[in-house]
Amino acid sequence: MSSAETFDIKPIAWREGVLRLLDQRRLPGLEVWVDCTTLEDVIAAISDLVVRGAPVIGIAAVYGMVIAAQAQSGDSVSGCQAAVKRAASELIAARPTAVNLAWAVKRQLVVAVRQYETVEALSDALLCEARSIHESEVLACRAMGRFGAELVADGAGILTHCNAGALATGGYGTALGVIRAAVEAGKRVHVWVDETRPVLQGARLTAWELTRAGIPNTLIVDGAAASVIGRGEVDLVVVGADRIAANGDVANKIGTYGVALAAAAHDVPFVVAAPLSTVDLACTTGSDITIEQRDPDEVRRLAGVQVAPPRQDAANWAFDVTPHALVTAIVTETGVAQPPYSESLLALCALVASQ
Amino acid sequence: MSSAETFDIKPIAWREGVLRLLDQRRLPGLEVWVDCTTLEDVIAAISDLVVRGAPVIGIAAVYGMVIAAQAQSGDSVSGCQAAVKRAASELIAARPTAVNLAWAVKRQLVVAVRQYETVEALSDALLCEARSIHESEVLACRAMGRFGAELVADGAGILTHCNAGALATGGYGTALGVIRAAVEAGKRVHVWVDETRPVLQGARLTAWELTRAGIPNTLIVDGAAASVIGRGEVDLVVVGADRIAANGDVANKIGTYGVALAAAAHDVPFVVAAPLSTVDLACTTGSDITIEQRDPDEVRRLAGVQVAPPRQDAANWAFDVTPHALVTAIVTETGVAQPPYSESLLALCALVASQ
Repeated sequence: MSSAETFDIKPIAWREGVLRLLDQRRLPGLEVWVDCTTLEDVIAAISDLVVRGAPVIGIAAVYGMVIAAQAQSGDSVSGCQAAVKRAASELIAARPTAVNLAWAVKRQLVVAVRQYETVEALSDALLCEARSIHESEVLACRAMGRFGAELVADGAGILTHCNAGALATGGYGTALGVIRAAVEAGKRVHVWVDETRPVLQGARLTAWELTRAGIPNTLIVDGAAASVIGRGEVDLVVVGADRIAANGDVANKIGTYGVALAAAAHDVPFVVAAPLSTVDLACTTGSDITIEQRDPDEVRRLAGVQVAPPRQDAANWAFDVTPHALVTAIVTETGVAQPPYSESLLALCALVASQ
Repeated sequence: MSSAETFDIKPIAWREGVLRLLDQRRLPGLEVWVDCTTLEDVIAAISDLVVRGAPVIGIAAVYGMVIAAQAQSGDSVSGCQAAVKRAASELIAARPTAVNLAWAVKRQLVVAVRQYETVEALSDALLCEARSIHESEVLACRAMGRFGAELVADGAGILTHCNAGALATGGYGTALGVIRAAVEAGKRVHVWVDETRPVLQGARLTAWELTRAGIPNTLIVDGAAASVIGRGEVDLVVVGADRIAANGDVANKIGTYGVALAAAAHDVPFVVAAPLSTVDLACTTGSDITIEQRDPDEVRRLAGVQVAPPRQDAANWAFDVTPHALVTAIVTETGVAQPPYSESLLALCALVASQ
C-alpha cells in the first residue's frame, strides 16, 4: 500500500462455506464478526442491519444463495434450483428499497437456472458468480473514486450523510471512496459527518472509517447540516444511493433530501456516488421507488435506551427521495452522469451492456 | 377548565424561598423536581438543562436573583445590591443565545438598584418582580395562542422542532401554545414532532406534552422533516425562538434552519411564536447573534450511551439562524408581525413600550 493510500476495511468475507459479516450494529464499540451458515442467518443479518449499505447487501445476498444451494446437497438439481429461486424471493423481500440487492440476486438467478449435472456444480457456479459480483463491486468503488476525486478541490470541506463507505460496499466505499481517492491523490479535505439518526451510521460507521483512514472529520447532528453549509464550511456534498430512477431522482438514507435542499440554497454541488447497479431504469421517477418503513422503535429507542414515551406514535421511513433537479452529478464506475440524467444515465448503462 | 382546554404543565414554581424546577433531563421517564436554594444551584440548573427554553430560563434567572438577595440577609443594602449585580452577570453568562434570559435579568436589575431601607425590602421587591415576569410570560403565551390559532386551518398537519411548549415557558407554551389554542378552538390537527438531537427535546418533551394534552402527534427523526413536508403532510411549521434580530432573522434550536428551507421549497408557511422579550433590537441581523457551542459529548453520547468513537471530533452549535426571508410570520403576545420585520417588529415593540 502506498503511503498516500487510505486504510481499508472489509465488512464481508467468504470462508469455507461460511459468510462472515462484520456486525455493523456493534461498531464502533466492538468489532464482532457474525458467521452465517444458513439462508435464514443471511436474511436476518440483512433485515436486522448486521450488514447494511446498498452494494454490500447485494453481495451478502448472492452468497446467501450459495448457502441455499449448498444446503440442498442431497437434492436433485431441479430441486436445488427451486430452493435457490425461493431463497432469491426471500432475500429480495428482506429490504425493499436498495435495488442493488434485487439486481445482484437476479444476476445470480441467471446463473442458477442454467443446466448442471450435479448440485455441486450448480453450487460452484453460484459461488464463482458471487465472488465475481463481490470483486466487481470493489473494483467499481475504485473506479468511482478515480472519477469522483476530480470533483474534489484541494482544501475542500465535504459533507456526507449516512455511511457510503467500505462498510457499505465490498470495501473502499462509494461516497467515501470518492473522498479516499481525493486524499490518495494528495488533496487535503475536511469531512463533516452527519450522525444519521435513527441508526447513527454516520456517528458509528463513517466517523470510525474516516478516522481509521486518517481523514480529518467532524461529527454533527443531522439538524446541524444546513447551518454548517450556511456557514460556508462545505464545498461539496457527496452521498451514496440505494436506488436511482431513470430520471436521476435518488433514493438514499432518510435526511438526504434535506441536505440536498440546503446545498442547493447555498450553491454547493450535491454529488451522488453509486455503482450502475443502483440505477433502476424500471423506475421512471423517484415516485416509483418503494420506501421501506422500519420498526418505529428505532426512533423511540437508541442503543437500547428509551428516548421517547414507550407507546409514542412514531414514523420511520428509512429513505427519502432527492429530486434530480437538486443533483449536480452522479458518479458511477463508468463515468460521471450529469443532467439531463434521463439521457446520461441511459448512455452509461448502455455502455456497460455493450462491453 | 373547559372540555376543550388542553391539559397544562408547569415546569417552574416558587415555594417559600425555594425555586422548584421540573428536571427536563429526566423526562419523560421520570418526573423529578429539583430544589434550588442557592444561586449556584440556579446557574447549574440553567447551564445543565434541568430547565431549558428561552422564556422559562429568564423566569428561573429572576428567581435566582431573589435567592442571591435573600442570601445577603445579614449584609447592607448596598452589599446586597452588589451581590445581585454579580448574580445577574453570572446568570446571563450561563446561556448566551436566548435573549429572554438577559432581558428578564436586566428588568430585575432595574428593580434591584432602586433605594431600599432594608435587604428584606429589596428581596421582597425582587420576588414581586419575579412573580410579575413569571405571570406575564404565561399570559403572553395565552395571547400568542389566540393570535396564532388563527393561522391554523382545521385538519392541519403541523410540524414543530424542539420544545416550545409549557416546559419551555411558565406554562402553555409559545409554538405549542399556538397548537393548544387551535385545538381549544375546536380545530383538528396532527403534529409531526422532530426528535431534535442532540438533547432530544422533541422526543422527550414535545411528544410527552402533546400526548398529555390529548393532541395527536407522530415522532420523526430530524432528517425526516424535509421528506414529511415533501409528502404533503405538513400545512404549517411552527417553532419558538431564542433570539430574534431586528430584521426578523430567528435564532432557534439547531435544525430549525433546515426545516425552514424545506418548508420554503414546498410553499409551507413557516411561523415563529415568541414573546417580544425574544426580540433583540440591538441585533441588526442574525449574524450579530452569539451562537452557544455546547459540550461535544452531547453529540458523541446519548442518554449515557456512547454513540461515536470516544475521542471523535464533534461540533455542537446549539442554535442556528433562519434568515427572515424564510419566515412567514412572527406571532407575539401583542400581534402577528409580517414582512418587512424591520418595520413590523419595531411597531409591536413600540406598542408595548407605550402601554
